[in-house]
Amino acid sequence: MECADYGITRALERDNLNLNPLQRGGVLPAAARKALYEFGDGYSVCDYCAGRLDQVTRPAVNSFLDDLADFIDADAVRTVHGAREGKFAVMHALCEAGDTIVADGNAHYTTHLAAERNNLEIVEVPSTGYPDYEIKPEAYREVLEDVADRVDVKLAVLTHVDGNYGNLTDAEEVARICRKMGVPLLLNCAYSMGRLPVKLREIGADFVVGSGHKSMAASGPIGVLGMRSEWEDTLLRRSGRHEKKEIEMLGCTSRGAPLATLMASLPHVVERVSRWDDEIKKTRKLVSELEEMGGIRQIGKRPKEHDLVRFETPVFHDIASSHPRKGFFLYEELKKRRIVGIRRGQTKWFKCSVYGMTDGQVQYVIDSFREIIEKNRN
Amino acid sequence: MECADYGITRALERDNLNLNPLQRGGVLPAAARKALYEFGDGYSVCDYCAGRLDQVTRPAVNSFLDDLADFIDADAVRTVHGAREGKFAVMHALCEAGDTIVADGNAHYTTHLAAERNNLEIVEVPSTGYPDYEIKPEAYREVLEDVADRVDVKLAVLTHVDGNYGNLTDAEEVARICRKMGVPLLLNCAYSMGRLPVKLREIGADFVVGSGHKSMAASGPIGVLGMRSEWEDTLLRRSGRHEKKEIEMLGCTSRGAPLATLMASLPHVVERVSRWDDEIKKTRKLVSELEEMGGIRQIGKRPKEHDLVRFETPVFHDIASSHPRKGFFLYEELKKRRIVGIRRGQTKWFKCSVYGMTDGQVQYVIDSFREIIEKNRN
Repeated sequence: MECADYGITRALERDNLNLNPLQRGGVLPAAARKALYEFGDGYSVCDYCAGRLDQVTRPAVNSFLDDLADFIDADAVRTVHGAREGKFAVMHALCEAGDTIVADGNAHYTTHLAAERNNLEIVEVPSTGYPDYEIKPEAYREVLEDVADRVDVKLAVLTHVDGNYGNLTDAEEVARICRKMGVPLLLNCAYSMGRLPVKLREIGADFVVGSGHKSMAASGPIGVLGMRSEWEDTLLRRSGRHEKKEIEMLGCTSRGAPLATLMASLPHVVERVSRWDDEIKKTRKLVSELEEMGGIRQIGKRPKEHDLVRFETPVFHDIASSHPRKGFFLYEELKKRRIVGIRRGQTKWFKCSVYGMTDGQVQYVIDSFREIIEKNRN
Repeated sequence: MECADYGITRALERDNLNLNPLQRGGVLPAAARKALYEFGDGYSVCDYCAGRLDQVTRPAVNSFLDDLADFIDADAVRTVHGAREGKFAVMHALCEAGDTIVADGNAHYTTHLAAERNNLEIVEVPSTGYPDYEIKPEAYREVLEDVADRVDVKLAVLTHVDGNYGNLTDAEEVARICRKMGVPLLLNCAYSMGRLPVKLREIGADFVVGSGHKSMAASGPIGVLGMRSEWEDTLLRRSGRHEKKEIEMLGCTSRGAPLATLMASLPHVVERVSRWDDEIKKTRKLVSELEEMGGIRQIGKRPKEHDLVRFETPVFHDIASSHPRKGFFLYEELKKRRIVGIRRGQTKWFKCSVYGMTDGQVQYVIDSFREIIEKNRN
C-alpha cells in the first residue's frame, strides 16, 4: 500500500514566535532535546525495569519522582499520560457510577469528560460571568453546602488556572472549605504546575494533576499526579494477581521519551518557577500596552496573575470588516512579522501568552500589534 | 531545590546489539527520528486542532488514520496510549462491573489489570503447558461454551502473540468460535501489529489493539485501537456536553511526539511487514544453531512463527555454577561483544529476539554464544 504524505514538519511553529498559550509552557530546553535523542526508541525507559516504572533506577525514575514530590510538596507522585488521565484515575478510584462531584464553572472540558467516562454527575460552581469570570471561594462553599445537603459529594475539583481566561483561583481557601466539609479536593494544575509554585500540602489539596506538555517543558503526552499519603492505598491500590502492579496506572503509564524529557527538564522547570514574578511583569506589560492602543480589552481577573491572557479586540474586528483580506489580515500581518499562534481568521478576540519570551521578544510582539493597528486602522 | 542526576543516557542500549524482544520492534527509522525533532515540543501535534485529534490535518493525522485502518483492515482506528489503554477502553465501553470475560492463559499482565480496573471477572483458557504453552482454539471453545452456560460473556480476549513464548495463536479459528457464539473478540496484537500482517476483518475479530513502542517503530507511549464499524457507536460514543469529543478517548489521546513518530514510521512498517518471512527465517536459524550447541532448548511452539524466542539454557546455568563471576558471566561476556538485552545474572533461561537485525548481525550473535560456550564450558 501507498501511504499519503502526512506533512510531518513544524518549522513554522518552531521557528517563529508562537503566541498560543497551549504551546508556551511545553517548549523543550536543550537537556530535554538530548533526552529525546537518547530515549527516542520505543520502550526506551524500560531497559532496566523490574516490574514498576516508578522504581526504575536507570534512568533514575525513582530519584526523579522523589524530587518531583518534593517540588510539588506531595507525599506521593506518579506520572500519568496527562492531566486528564490523572483526573480520570482519581475519579475512578474514589467514585462509583452515579456519584456526584462538584467542579468549578471554568473547568477544562476534560474534567467533564473524565467525569462522564466515570458516569458521574457534576454540579457546577458558577463563575462571576462577564467580564471577570472569577470563581469565588464563597460561591464554591455555597454550592458545596447545597449539594452536600442532598447527596454525598465524593470529590471536589478546582481548576487552579483555567484555559479560557487564565484566572488563578484561591485554591487555599477552597481547600479549607472542602477540608472542613470532609470532601477531598483535586486541583487541576495543568496551567500552573511548572509555571508557578504549586505546593500540594501548603495549599491543602488532596490531589494535584499537572501537564508535562502544557506547562512542564516536556514532550507530550505526559502528566503528573500528586497526592497526600492518606490516598495512596486508594489510588495506588495493587493488583491481586500481579502484586507489584498498580491497578489505576494499568501497571505502568508513560513508558517512553516523554518521561525522559520530563525528567531532563525538571532542573529547568524548578529554576523557571522561581522566576514566575518576572513572567507576570511581562504579561502585565503586554496587557497595559495593548490596552493603551485602544479597542483592546483584557477579559478575566485583573490584574493578571497568569500568562494566559484573553483579549477582546474590537479594533481588529473593525479593521477586518473593510480589509481586502477580511478576517485573515491579522494572521497574515503577524505571520509576515514571524509571529504565529493566533488562529487564522479570528479577529473578535484571542488568547495569547508571552510566557518564556525574552523582554525583547515581548516588546517586539507589542510593537508588531501597534504597527498592524496603525497601518490598518480605518 | 537541587535535582539528582537521573542518568538520562542510553548509549549502551542504543549503540549495541540489543536482544531484548521488548526493544526490537520499537527502534525508530530515520524518518521517525526527524519527526521527533520536528514535534518534540509539548503539545506539538495540536497547533491546528479544531477539537479532534483524529481530524487534525496539519500534520495529516486524518490521512494517517485512513492509511492505518487500511493497513490493519479495520473500519475505524484511533491512537491510544498503548495496547493496555486500548484494552481498558474496549472493556470499559462494553462491560459493566461484575461482568465476565474470557482470556487466554498466555495473556499479558495488562489484560488482567485492564479487567481488574474495570472490576471484571476473567475466566482463563489454559495453555497446553510445558514445553509448548500453546493456546488451542478447541480449548478456547470449551471454556467459552462452559462459561456461557453460566453467565453472559461480554468479551473474549485473545493474545495474538504472547510475550513469554512468542506463540502465534490461530486467531481466525478463535474468531470463528466467538462469532458463532455471539461474543465479541478483542485481539491483542502488541507483539504482532507492525511486525507481521494483521488484518482485522480477514481474521474476523471485532477489535484489535497494537503497540507503537513495542512493534510499530514508534516512540512510546502510543498504541493503536482498530474496530469494526458496528462498534463505533459504543466505543467512540460522544460526550453529551462537548459534542465533538469521544468519551472513551477523554477527548484526545496521544497529543505529541509519539504520534508524529508513529505516522512517520508507517511507510517503513508497511514495508517491513511484507518481509516478515525473512524475519522468521532468521529466527529459525538462530534457534537451530543455538540448539545445535547443546544444552539450549527453545520453549514454546515449534517451529517458530515469531521472532520472540524463549530458550531454556542449562548450558549457561552449568557454567555459572563454577564460574568466578557466577551468574553474571553471561551478561558480561555478551557485553564485551557489544551484545545487550539479556538480564544481568540470568542464566537458566532467557527471552531474546533478532528482529530487524541484518543476517551478518544474526550470525555474529550466534557466533558469540558459541564462543562463550566453548570458552567456558566445564
